[in-house]
Amino acid sequence: MTLVPDRAVPPEQAAREEDLIARVRASFDSCRDPRLKELMQALVKHLHAFLREVRLTEEEWSRAIEFLTAVGHVTDDRRQEFILLSDTLGASMQTVTINNEAHGDATEATVFGPFFAEGSPRIEPGGDMSFGAAGEPCWVEGTVTGVDGDPVPGARIEVWEADGDGLYDVQYGDGRVAARAHLFTGADGSYRFWGVTPTPYPIPHDGPVGRMLEATGRSPMRASHLHFMVEAPSYRTLVTHIFVRGDELLDSDAVFGVRESLVKDFERRPAGTPTPDGRVVDGTWTKVRFDIVLAPAGV
Amino acid sequence: MTLVPDRAVPPEQAAREEDLIARVRASFDSCRDPRLKELMQALVKHLHAFLREVRLTEEEWSRAIEFLTAVGHVTDDRRQEFILLSDTLGASMQTVTINNEAHGDATEATVFGPFFAEGSPRIEPGGDMSFGAAGEPCWVEGTVTGVDGDPVPGARIEVWEADGDGLYDVQYGDGRVAARAHLFTGADGSYRFWGVTPTPYPIPHDGPVGRMLEATGRSPMRASHLHFMVEAPSYRTLVTHIFVRGDELLDSDAVFGVRESLVKDFERRPAGTPTPDGRVVDGTWTKVRFDIVLAPAGV
Repeated sequence: MTLVPDRAVPPEQAAREEDLIARVRASFDSCRDPRLKELMQALVKHLHAFLREVRLTEEEWSRAIEFLTAVGHVTDDRRQEFILLSDTLGASMQTVTINNEAHGDATEATVFGPFFAEGSPRIEPGGDMSFGAAGEPCWVEGTVTGVDGDPVPGARIEVWEADGDGLYDVQYGDGRVAARAHLFTGADGSYRFWGVTPTPYPIPHDGPVGRMLEATGRSPMRASHLHFMVEAPSYRTLVTHIFVRGDELLDSDAVFGVRESLVKDFERRPAGTPTPDGRVVDGTWTKVRFDIVLAPAGV
Repeated sequence: MTLVPDRAVPPEQAAREEDLIARVRASFDSCRDPRLKELMQALVKHLHAFLREVRLTEEEWSRAIEFLTAVGHVTDDRRQEFILLSDTLGASMQTVTINNEAHGDATEATVFGPFFAEGSPRIEPGGDMSFGAAGEPCWVEGTVTGVDGDPVPGARIEVWEADGDGLYDVQYGDGRVAARAHLFTGADGSYRFWGVTPTPYPIPHDGPVGRMLEATGRSPMRASHLHFMVEAPSYRTLVTHIFVRGDELLDSDAVFGVRESLVKDFERRPAGTPTPDGRVVDGTWTKVRFDIVLAPAGV
């Protein structure tokens, strides 16, 4: 074992604990799937290293079982508390980080989140993905290129976001579809659409993960963001967000999703300022540019 | 970080991964409960070390979320799949091991298991705890003493076991109470009762934990055993089993609960052999002695 508990444990006791680990790891020796075997044996190693380092009490073990049971019971088709747990422990973002190491000049990825929904409506270039969602209008434009700078025509861009009240359409439970759409880049790789200016909102915090955050003095707030998923043949699918420069939550995002390269200037325009497409906006609006660089597939 | 991933990770990539860990750990800095803070920060350290070592893919992360979701959904008042998961990963037994380090000469503890039930019937010394459960009769006797050898009168002994068909009463779902009782030691610390000879049985394996065991080539079988929980004022409560010497499953117990000191001789007597208390047994019966040594409380 490479991990030595921080506290003094008599050698005889340490031997008992290490013998147990060896037996548990050996129980997976005859697993025929080599990757599954690797995963399970590494899981055992790190799980037991945790238990030994903190000298987990039996009462704490019971509390952990109760917590996981509660996470399981609040999870259903609309609410994925295990993803929230993974997100708030940084495990989702670490997985994203590990799997995006090879894409140097490409746009950085971040967490997928629990609010993507299949079957979003298609909008045309310059169309409005808000579909009536409350919020300040936001003009989003940019290009999709490869790392060589070549434009990527026909790339499919999925965009989704919370409305001005901090809720995704699926959280209303009334079947509405809003602030969610897909569109395609033009022949020059460009895209543009209307959405709403992102605002901060809390992750669902009325369940066990919310209680964990409260007990540990953490905020459930996410930095303001707009989700993107960009797909094109022979390119790696990109799942990311853009964040709002100046948002005071950038350093305390509840799911650790912020990357500096994804923080963008959302420029606010006074009421009455002409919009890029001549649309008449009743009040202020914002404008942001997000140029997306896709990595080649299979890297 | 003390953990270096096994695979070559470029320094810049390693720095991104370690920076994320530092941010997640720092998010717990303002936790007011020092023990909770320690637990969460250590959990983050070991969880991320696991993710980094195995370079978990996004597909594998999704499979893990689906697995935990399934574990949550099969768990209810009668079925605790998270305990089964903890048991089969050796985490339950490691927790028991960690918390019983200070009780040198006392009887060793083992896992509690998911089948204890409150409110068992009381039997008198020499009574029958099987209450009609199928199985070969088994005479169990012994003493309860402290580590100084002094008898412990009035100790409460809870005993429970699977019946000869490998099922606990609570698994039948018909409200029966059988193969489960409590009794008290006499003035000399002795106890005796009739039960049934333990037989091997599988842990519930029709759920996600069973599928994990099957996918990894592991058996769901537990070595034959009889559960004990012994409580007495000013002594540490002991939760343990006794196992059957000669059981071929002693080395492959699905929950890693076997300790050599808990393996006992269950001596089989031919049909017609007089029993210790003059009871007439129709067929073979077995006899086992289990002398229990309790550690002082508060150690």
